[in-house]
Amino acid sequence: MTFGPLHGEAGRVDVAAAAGGYPVVVGSGLLDEIPRVADAVAPGRRLAVISDSTVLPLHGARVAEGLRAAGREVATFDFPAGEASKTRRSWSVLTDRMLEAGFGRDSCVVAVGGGVTTDLAGFVAATFLRGVPVLQVPTSTLAMIDASVGGKTGVDVRAGKNLVGAFHPPAAVVADVQTLETLPRSERAQGLVEAVKHGAILDERHFDTVGARLEAVLAGDAEASADVVLASVRLKAGVVARDEFEGGLRQILNFGHTVGHALEAASAYALGHGSAVAAGMLAESRIGERMGVTAQGTTERLASVLRRVVGDVEPSGTAESARSYLSSDKKARGGQARYVLLERIGKAAGEGGWSHSVPDPLVDDVLASLYFRP
Amino acid sequence: MTFGPLHGEAGRVDVAAAAGGYPVVVGSGLLDEIPRVADAVAPGRRLAVISDSTVLPLHGARVAEGLRAAGREVATFDFPAGEASKTRRSWSVLTDRMLEAGFGRDSCVVAVGGGVTTDLAGFVAATFLRGVPVLQVPTSTLAMIDASVGGKTGVDVRAGKNLVGAFHPPAAVVADVQTLETLPRSERAQGLVEAVKHGAILDERHFDTVGARLEAVLAGDAEASADVVLASVRLKAGVVARDEFEGGLRQILNFGHTVGHALEAASAYALGHGSAVAAGMLAESRIGERMGVTAQGTTERLASVLRRVVGDVEPSGTAESARSYLSSDKKARGGQARYVLLERIGKAAGEGGWSHSVPDPLVDDVLASLYFRP
Repeated sequence: MTFGPLHGEAGRVDVAAAAGGYPVVVGSGLLDEIPRVADAVAPGRRLAVISDSTVLPLHGARVAEGLRAAGREVATFDFPAGEASKTRRSWSVLTDRMLEAGFGRDSCVVAVGGGVTTDLAGFVAATFLRGVPVLQVPTSTLAMIDASVGGKTGVDVRAGKNLVGAFHPPAAVVADVQTLETLPRSERAQGLVEAVKHGAILDERHFDTVGARLEAVLAGDAEASADVVLASVRLKAGVVARDEFEGGLRQILNFGHTVGHALEAASAYALGHGSAVAAGMLAESRIGERMGVTAQGTTERLASVLRRVVGDVEPSGTAESARSYLSSDKKARGGQARYVLLERIGKAAGEGGWSHSVPDPLVDDVLASLYFRP
Repeated sequence: MTFGPLHGEAGRVDVAAAAGGYPVVVGSGLLDEIPRVADAVAPGRRLAVISDSTVLPLHGARVAEGLRAAGREVATFDFPAGEASKTRRSWSVLTDRMLEAGFGRDSCVVAVGGGVTTDLAGFVAATFLRGVPVLQVPTSTLAMIDASVGGKTGVDVRAGKNLVGAFHPPAAVVADVQTLETLPRSERAQGLVEAVKHGAILDERHFDTVGARLEAVLAGDAEASADVVLASVRLKAGVVARDEFEGGLRQILNFGHTVGHALEAASAYALGHGSAVAAGMLAESRIGERMGVTAQGTTERLASVLRRVVGDVEPSGTAESARSYLSSDKKARGGQARYVLLERIGKAAGEGGWSHSVPDPLVDDVLASLYFRP
């Protein structure tokens, strides 16, 4: 299951997992190395390359061609690009098409794309004949930094995002930062928000590094991107290794996401995930400051970086719909308000109990300020 | 996670699993002990009792009442009885209803019913917010002996049975043989076929014991049922402990199932699972004899017991449709013919390689003999 250094490899992180650890390799030009990785982690298996309709012609087809040229049996499967595709319906269709194409227990899914693809194709792999391996090939900053690492897979349902899914650690993750060149600057920004988050909850130095290299990453610079992705993956891997199934510590990765998901849903997903989480982090930091949990000035420091990443976020929808989503999300998660708060930049608040309960009026107040900013 | 002896307990088997082992408790009157078990394996969790429309009034409601009386928060969810409900659609509906009812990560599914329920509710639990525990309470002979032990969950799709699912070991299994009293004799027979199978592949003495106690179990006798269920679960648990994810040895549990599934599908599921597997075992034993792998006379000895369990099976549908299903099943499973063959009663053939490939004409010939019996 191991393989030597790849051409263009900038570094790798080994992620621990109960069902067996896996490497996350980051570098430039790594798409050409996928056949070597597939031979190491999925020898002899038939390969189902899953991409969305945008990424298939850009990268998915090339990955499939490379594998075919290396003598592997490959088929490609695509689905319409966009968060609206992250559904049980798409999951069913992809599964049925793989079955019709004769894929069986000797399959391996190769997920080439952004976070929707890594989550959706990962869930297909998790449940296909009760589970086949998945090789994650993230092609967006967001997927590299967040979605493809940690084994979470799943789809959205009416009641909320990611409420149906499985923990299914990948066989390996190959993050080729060259693919980020095809990404619009605004999409690079969406992913960078998660890097800022990793710094905010875990490592002040990383927070400052991201701030310093922000422009280079937004411009698609390969070296800066590889550095930031690697450092972020290392931070996330450290958390996942200590709490794979989110019994405790892993919750801190949800900083900004409780409010963020509500803003996303309230905008009917017009708001990007990163922008929503950026606004969510500011809101949850402000909540923390008002509760006396978070050091004063933290929100301002967060804002000064996030503003350079995603600009001023103007949430669409209404505060009412965001509020109603928050309460249905709360219900879906067992009636517990779950807010991750910061102690300061570089440290989440709480030892052991990482989820804080927050009085409803305070949430309402901060939420309203997002929609009616001065 | 452990609990002391239950009132009415005849015995228990501890099943090893990578994600943590679990007890299978067998006895008479154990439904009344579910609150104790739930307190031990799912303390504080909200309980979602899932049953089909037939079993809910018979047993599911009683289990829910007992839990409620013990101070637990409980809701019941049902679906139309029958194999036709074992679909992604039912899984979606049950999931959404649980979400609407406010179930969250602090849930535990309590599956009360036959094999369709344990498989379907188990898959709901496996994917609900990426996995919540399931307490399996099998109420059919088939589910006690087979479906609820070993962690396999899943649903049927057009391409075949159980092609979508997950390995999700239960928190515990409580098999109350008193519930078998409400089962028609023909349904008890369906489950007994799996006990005969366990003897045929693993233990000649168990094969003979099942033969000797057959009438008592078919009549619903609690003591005989508990003995046969316990011995069968012990045999299956031994296999599952050595190969949880069916990389090798666990395949032997599929004896009779390759042909059996084809007969079931060809009859549009009019043929019961046990009857289909019984005919499948005879067919696969005959194949083994004709290939010189299985000792001569094995099929006759199998038939003499199985005839007393399910009578003479007259498969409905046609040999053509069964054959076409076999080839689509073969395709779905990666193009490999997978037949488990016996060496003799009490021993599956093959050391290491448990799946045998069989020439198509031989399969066709034996299949035709099932449909056009002398």
